[in-house]
Amino acid sequence: MALIVQKYGGTSVGTVDRIQAVAEKVAGFHKRGDQVVVVVSAMSGETNRLIELAKGVSDNPSPREMDVLVSTGEQVTIALLSMALQKQGINARSYTGSQIPLRTDSVHSKARIEEIDDKKVRADLNGGSVVVVAGFQGVDADGNITTLGRGGSDTTAVALAAALQADECQIYTDVDGVYTTDPRVVDNARRLDSITFEEMLEMASQGSKVLQIRSVEFAGKYNVPLRVLSSFQDGPGTLITVDDEVDMEKPVISGIAFTRDEAKIIVRGAPDTPGIAYKILGPVSAENIEVDMIVQNVGKDGAADFTFTVHRNDFARAQEALRKASEELGNPEIIGDDKIAKVSLVGVGMRSHAGVASKMFETLANEGVNIEMISTSEIKVSVVIAEKYLELAVRALHSAFELDQPAG
Amino acid sequence: MALIVQKYGGTSVGTVDRIQAVAEKVAGFHKRGDQVVVVVSAMSGETNRLIELAKGVSDNPSPREMDVLVSTGEQVTIALLSMALQKQGINARSYTGSQIPLRTDSVHSKARIEEIDDKKVRADLNGGSVVVVAGFQGVDADGNITTLGRGGSDTTAVALAAALQADECQIYTDVDGVYTTDPRVVDNARRLDSITFEEMLEMASQGSKVLQIRSVEFAGKYNVPLRVLSSFQDGPGTLITVDDEVDMEKPVISGIAFTRDEAKIIVRGAPDTPGIAYKILGPVSAENIEVDMIVQNVGKDGAADFTFTVHRNDFARAQEALRKASEELGNPEIIGDDKIAKVSLVGVGMRSHAGVASKMFETLANEGVNIEMISTSEIKVSVVIAEKYLELAVRALHSAFELDQPAG
Repeated sequence: MALIVQKYGGTSVGTVDRIQAVAEKVAGFHKRGDQVVVVVSAMSGETNRLIELAKGVSDNPSPREMDVLVSTGEQVTIALLSMALQKQGINARSYTGSQIPLRTDSVHSKARIEEIDDKKVRADLNGGSVVVVAGFQGVDADGNITTLGRGGSDTTAVALAAALQADECQIYTDVDGVYTTDPRVVDNARRLDSITFEEMLEMASQGSKVLQIRSVEFAGKYNVPLRVLSSFQDGPGTLITVDDEVDMEKPVISGIAFTRDEAKIIVRGAPDTPGIAYKILGPVSAENIEVDMIVQNVGKDGAADFTFTVHRNDFARAQEALRKASEELGNPEIIGDDKIAKVSLVGVGMRSHAGVASKMFETLANEGVNIEMISTSEIKVSVVIAEKYLELAVRALHSAFELDQPAG
Repeated sequence: MALIVQKYGGTSVGTVDRIQAVAEKVAGFHKRGDQVVVVVSAMSGETNRLIELAKGVSDNPSPREMDVLVSTGEQVTIALLSMALQKQGINARSYTGSQIPLRTDSVHSKARIEEIDDKKVRADLNGGSVVVVAGFQGVDADGNITTLGRGGSDTTAVALAAALQADECQIYTDVDGVYTTDPRVVDNARRLDSITFEEMLEMASQGSKVLQIRSVEFAGKYNVPLRVLSSFQDGPGTLITVDDEVDMEKPVISGIAFTRDEAKIIVRGAPDTPGIAYKILGPVSAENIEVDMIVQNVGKDGAADFTFTVHRNDFARAQEALRKASEELGNPEIIGDDKIAKVSLVGVGMRSHAGVASKMFETLANEGVNIEMISTSEIKVSVVIAEKYLELAVRALHSAFELDQPAG
């Protein structure tokens, strides 16, 4: 008998039929004796429907009222799933974030969890009930409804698992686990049986969309075993674990992440004086634009060539911010390129294996792919390349690092 | 400056445009200095959409989860209306039943209000905000979401008005007040400037659908001045007041209510022995069927003719119950008729004027309308007639009692 927290996303509960299917899956765990807490999102499409209603009323709806509005989405799902479970002969009780209560700070639309009261949930579990919890939402100290922002339901599940000291937190999605890379790009991409939290974090931050970064961080911090599985097919999924020992058998690289979401801006010919990096990035961050990779070279005549990437959505605004500050920067040349992609090798095995970066560069060179920027961390090497080479590069690296072979 | 509680029903907030219109109306009161609490229902169609979802999941959904589900309907409206008010430059704050909290008992789907905490609402009003409250819903002592059942939003408004000792509770509907009778039947039906709680209760219980009985009872009990107005056009509406003095100028009759919702059952030839009424009605009420009018005559040979009416939906079940008990009743003849209508004259003026009933019977006789049953109370005379004469009878009575003439 185990205590399991399961989370089903919007697609998994997108129709009445799918809700019935989730109820059957949950019933299976309950019948074999597990204690189950189920966290659900709004039915797919519902949150957007609510946001459209709000847009119809106001261009600039208040965050407090937006949270009151969108939190109804999950509330509908918890009621329907509880009914479906009851139809299976299982005692089920639903809880909104306020009812738990799942206490957050007061930052509407991106609240942070402060405290979870597990009394009611525990009492229900001990009484033999399945507990169904609305993801994504909480309540602040004054009783205002809050929401946790994007990916909030994953965070709810992990936080509940931590509070309940659950044996496992299972995140059900539309994929059956974490893959060495995107199977739509590489045919023989392989599902990983396990991956470490650190690797998962790097994969997520480099563009792999399986889990939200925040929930992985949370799970890592509270040591909650996290498993990614498919709602639609059976299978073991991928377990995300703590890297508690150096496993010499561990493969050097666990996966390849990539993203087309970035764009590159080159500032050429700014004077290479102390503080020039701040002068360039100051106006950009003043616009609340996040900068990802940064490279600085001294170019000809002692002038600096400064290159950085931003989210593609911020590309125009970032250039505009720089142009406004142009005079102060000594009127450098500002060049933009949004036809780039970022490819990252991720693996804790890198720590004990030298030469990952050079093997990566060699592989790309052999394919004639020019590397425009490089960034490394302890368990990651990222390169920026022209977007047109993305698929070619990922396939070549997947093969060079033998990711299609089962881990040995 | 007055403290006003306003209630807008589902049709009044049925679209984004109508919500904007309600916001403008509320803004008008706020700008002239009134403190306003707005109670809203779910957007029209929304509650049915949610019920259909539940039906898709289970034939027999649990009442607790149904309340969790349908209470989202009003929650959506309070958020949208608050946003619309904010767009008008007004501070507005929404509250669910749980947030107020509006405390009820634990009878899901027809909970009764036990206590309203007015602290938050009062603080917001004193701070210059408009408070927007979800009608129809509350919370029990254990934090479970409850709903008040049909007409619950009216009840919420009246209860809040009572708790806040509001100057007036305004119920906005799709009609512009209470009429002497249904204007669809009588062309020159007249809007009443005022009507007493007692009269309004009788009108409602006799089929006039303007207000729910429970909210009128509640308003009468707590002495809350209640006004019925139109959401869609300006006008004074109808004020529902306490009949605190006998007004000799008061018209004898305030209005004519009618209903086609009933059916008549005749039990002919049961032995006229003590307890026969109980023996006949016992099996009917054992089926949870409510009986309205009851008439008993001694027929030929000392046998009783017993006639009563039930809701038309219960017609078949009531006859079935009687047939099962037939032997015990001495195998009487059981005759049913669901082609009947009930017409009721209502007016507190009856108390001080004799002869209302006889004038009613005379009027109907002159039109050749046969009266099948009669029932009277202190401020009401009801008759059952064949359904085909309904419009004729209502028009004749409306004219005979000069209801088309302004009072006074």
